[in-house]
Amino acid sequence: MSDYELYYWPTIQGRGEFVRLVLEELGAPYRDVARLPASDGGGVPSIFTLRRHEHSAHPAFAPPMLKDGDLLIAQTANICLYLGKKHNFVPPGDGWALANQLQLSIADVTAEAHDTHHPLGSHLYYEEQKEAALVRGRSFAKGRMAQWLDYFENVIDYNGGDYLLGSICYVDLSLFQLVAGLEYAFPRAFVAHRAKVPRVVALHDAIASRPRVAAYLDSPRRIPFNEEGIFRHYPELDLE
Amino acid sequence: MSDYELYYWPTIQGRGEFVRLVLEELGAPYRDVARLPASDGGGVPSIFTLRRHEHSAHPAFAPPMLKDGDLLIAQTANICLYLGKKHNFVPPGDGWALANQLQLSIADVTAEAHDTHHPLGSHLYYEEQKEAALVRGRSFAKGRMAQWLDYFENVIDYNGGDYLLGSICYVDLSLFQLVAGLEYAFPRAFVAHRAKVPRVVALHDAIASRPRVAAYLDSPRRIPFNEEGIFRHYPELDLE
Repeated sequence: MSDYELYYWPTIQGRGEFVRLVLEELGAPYRDVARLPASDGGGVPSIFTLRRHEHSAHPAFAPPMLKDGDLLIAQTANICLYLGKKHNFVPPGDGWALANQLQLSIADVTAEAHDTHHPLGSHLYYEEQKEAALVRGRSFAKGRMAQWLDYFENVIDYNGGDYLLGSICYVDLSLFQLVAGLEYAFPRAFVAHRAKVPRVVALHDAIASRPRVAAYLDSPRRIPFNEEGIFRHYPELDLE
Repeated sequence: MSDYELYYWPTIQGRGEFVRLVLEELGAPYRDVARLPASDGGGVPSIFTLRRHEHSAHPAFAPPMLKDGDLLIAQTANICLYLGKKHNFVPPGDGWALANQLQLSIADVTAEAHDTHHPLGSHLYYEEQKEAALVRGRSFAKGRMAQWLDYFENVIDYNGGDYLLGSICYVDLSLFQLVAGLEYAFPRAFVAHRAKVPRVVALHDAIASRPRVAAYLDSPRRIPFNEEGIFRHYPELDLE
């Protein structure tokens, strides 16, 4: 088996992080191509080259993209499902559809968290849309975020109390990432709601302490959160 | 096989329409439960009942939801993939991942089209966020919509010129719905770009004239577009 190739912006966790976490937990060999030096075919140009010139029958609208031999696929939740199915990291039978449902719900919250700082669109800087961001951000911090966390808390609760679907599967890694991101971006709102979602918090901690994930989080491969990614810490958008 | 049960808001096309179109093209027997009279267990309360009381191990955060015997699943793209796989309406092999990638891209444009009228969040009325909507709507009408349509045009072009992935699959029905929605919501922007995406337009027309889809579109089962759904015709958001 040749190594997987991941193509994603090299300076942020972003949506690529959901894929990185699955690859790391699986111990799957992969090259994070855009993070390699330009002399090794890396850097941001590698993303554009792949989008424009190769595999034109199945172009990606945006990264992340995963190359597995001749197959090139995009869309975060799709890549995670593909890896989950291929490595038996999904529940059996129709369980993949329950996992995918949750993964798409995590994608929804992630998009909402992004839109708190870019409600008018990604073509404008945060500073150009700060007034709108204050409305959207505070609404997210005041109620919407808790509504989502409560949802995942109930799912874990009804499925045995430890993981989203009883046994660990790829979606639990994504919930870890979501929780880490929300705690980083909205620390005051997160602390205010933390005690109400003990299973979500416990799942986050359990994932963080899995040997491969812990080694990854400690390594330089884990890019720190920053204010270029999806989860940004702008205190003015958080609870007061 | 018992009938499928679809649960979705009864007065809009919304995200449920992507599922309805797949069910209709497949000729699959289904009950659009919330559109049935309350005396038959229908109406909006049927959605809340299902979310709150049954199948609590796998609750949906939001409709649409599909019930197939004991299985209850949510998330539009997930339901469409499930139906596509079950009824062999996806490309063979790993082709499901290419289809799902495109379906999730269609979901992304759909979300962007929704956000043109609700950039600050669904908790506020359009009239309360009209100023922000003008910024986001015009940016979508002026460039972003064309960018997405060009993307799908290229995919069709590179895959034989007729359908997104060579042969018809469930994703083509969703592209039909997206095009119909954009043409309804942004008629001026759509007309301005129409000649540049002939394959997208031809695919839309080919799907609309398929016997089962045509019969559906002519029936009272097809809810007309309106200003409660995702694709809303607010002329002030369109090109001037």
